[in-house]
Amino acid sequence: MGGSLARALRPQVAHLTGIDTDAATRRAALQAGVAHAALPDLAGVRWRPGDLVVLATPVQTLLTQLRDLPRLAGGGCQVLDLGSTKAEIVAAMDALPPAFAAVGGHPICGREVSGWETGSADLFRAQTFVLCPSARTTPALRELASELVTALGATPLWLEAEAHDRIVALTSHLPYVLSALLMQQAAATAQANSPVWAVSGGGLRDMTRLAGSSPAMLRDILLTNRTAVVAEIGRFLADLQQFQNLLQTADADALVAWLQAAYDQRQAYWRAKWEK
Amino acid sequence: MGGSLARALRPQVAHLTGIDTDAATRRAALQAGVAHAALPDLAGVRWRPGDLVVLATPVQTLLTQLRDLPRLAGGGCQVLDLGSTKAEIVAAMDALPPAFAAVGGHPICGREVSGWETGSADLFRAQTFVLCPSARTTPALRELASELVTALGATPLWLEAEAHDRIVALTSHLPYVLSALLMQQAAATAQANSPVWAVSGGGLRDMTRLAGSSPAMLRDILLTNRTAVVAEIGRFLADLQQFQNLLQTADADALVAWLQAAYDQRQAYWRAKWEK
Repeated sequence: MGGSLARALRPQVAHLTGIDTDAATRRAALQAGVAHAALPDLAGVRWRPGDLVVLATPVQTLLTQLRDLPRLAGGGCQVLDLGSTKAEIVAAMDALPPAFAAVGGHPICGREVSGWETGSADLFRAQTFVLCPSARTTPALRELASELVTALGATPLWLEAEAHDRIVALTSHLPYVLSALLMQQAAATAQANSPVWAVSGGGLRDMTRLAGSSPAMLRDILLTNRTAVVAEIGRFLADLQQFQNLLQTADADALVAWLQAAYDQRQAYWRAKWEK
Repeated sequence: MGGSLARALRPQVAHLTGIDTDAATRRAALQAGVAHAALPDLAGVRWRPGDLVVLATPVQTLLTQLRDLPRLAGGGCQVLDLGSTKAEIVAAMDALPPAFAAVGGHPICGREVSGWETGSADLFRAQTFVLCPSARTTPALRELASELVTALGATPLWLEAEAHDRIVALTSHLPYVLSALLMQQAAATAQANSPVWAVSGGGLRDMTRLAGSSPAMLRDILLTNRTAVVAEIGRFLADLQQFQNLLQTADADALVAWLQAAYDQRQAYWRAKWEK
């Protein structure tokens, strides 16, 4: 995600320092002309007034970085993060000294793959980029963040962190959990010597794609959004139990109404979201 | 599915009659040169010895057609169906008079769209085509069905009907139920005036794709495979409940082990199934 952002912003910024623990990634960013300079960590940065640091790491690492920033950048700086959950991050931003300006960010274009070579300057184009205000969001940073998002070709959407986290629990974290559970259920049956893979097609392939997401990223996401994810799982459990009862009683009319509702909702969602 | 099969087989058969209740589909099949003749229903067919009829309708319609065949084709014929569940269909084939030869089929290349215009001769290429023997599967039809599947570019896999139905309950019907439930849960939240669609990306899009499947087709599938689908839902309910407990107790190590298992299984499945 950081690599994609750097690629997309490079033509528009005077100086871009790429920071990555991986030496090969630093070399690649320099060779591609995406970064003017590259460093292994934040400790080596020589801060200049008005610098904007964009933090693009798993959420627990973001929280550590936000805790370390006052020590590393004593004079303050501007901060934007790209983490997938926002409440704990915005709380950490709230706790920064007044020399810092900070805003939470979440571009809704995550993929199940990561790393420099999978990045693209077009990743953000036509996507929503959620921005979450913190107690340290200055009017100037508010404007800068909106401009940056627009420069990426994305659409800024300002949301309170808690509202953001409740929505992504439904649109992103619950889907991941369902995908991973389906993967585990299918794998358990396949291991019992059943031709599960041969008798599976595009449905299983697409429904298990999210199961291939980075475990380290997901651990941080699920632990920092536990309450909302548990609540969405609870809703799903109740609805799945109810559907199991419906199917067992096998009232064809009720079943058709249920199937038709899901079909209609999918068409409406597709028109509202993807047919633009 | 029937339109795709007709397109794929056309170069290899001496005479192909397309049967469809929709006049526009019949016209399109004739104009495209895919069918030599076209009829609105099985009643008008003038059967010739050795004719093979391929039934490609929703499952309940298939069951009706198999019940009507002795009256319509008194001299017998050869029958293959393309239905998504097999136990009830094979039982109906078992009940055909001895003048009939019949075998169950299920090409594992279903899509959430249907109709003549969405078909393609390449649909079956490199896919599994399950074949289920009935009491009426003659050695000659067994050979013909295997040849037909191979001619489509697909791989025949002979399975007992009950074994087939248990596997597709896991690989196809459970994924559909999860997709439809997720769609309904997201739509309910979106209707409560939450920016659910804006704060959703490719994950929700792919995980709700199956919810757009034909309600009529799914009704028949779920009702004729009820026992196996209820059982797979039961496994999923237990595992989802267990995961909810795991997340609530928030043991990071146990969570990481769970996430890593799903990740590893997805990689193994991908290598086994899709990296050929």
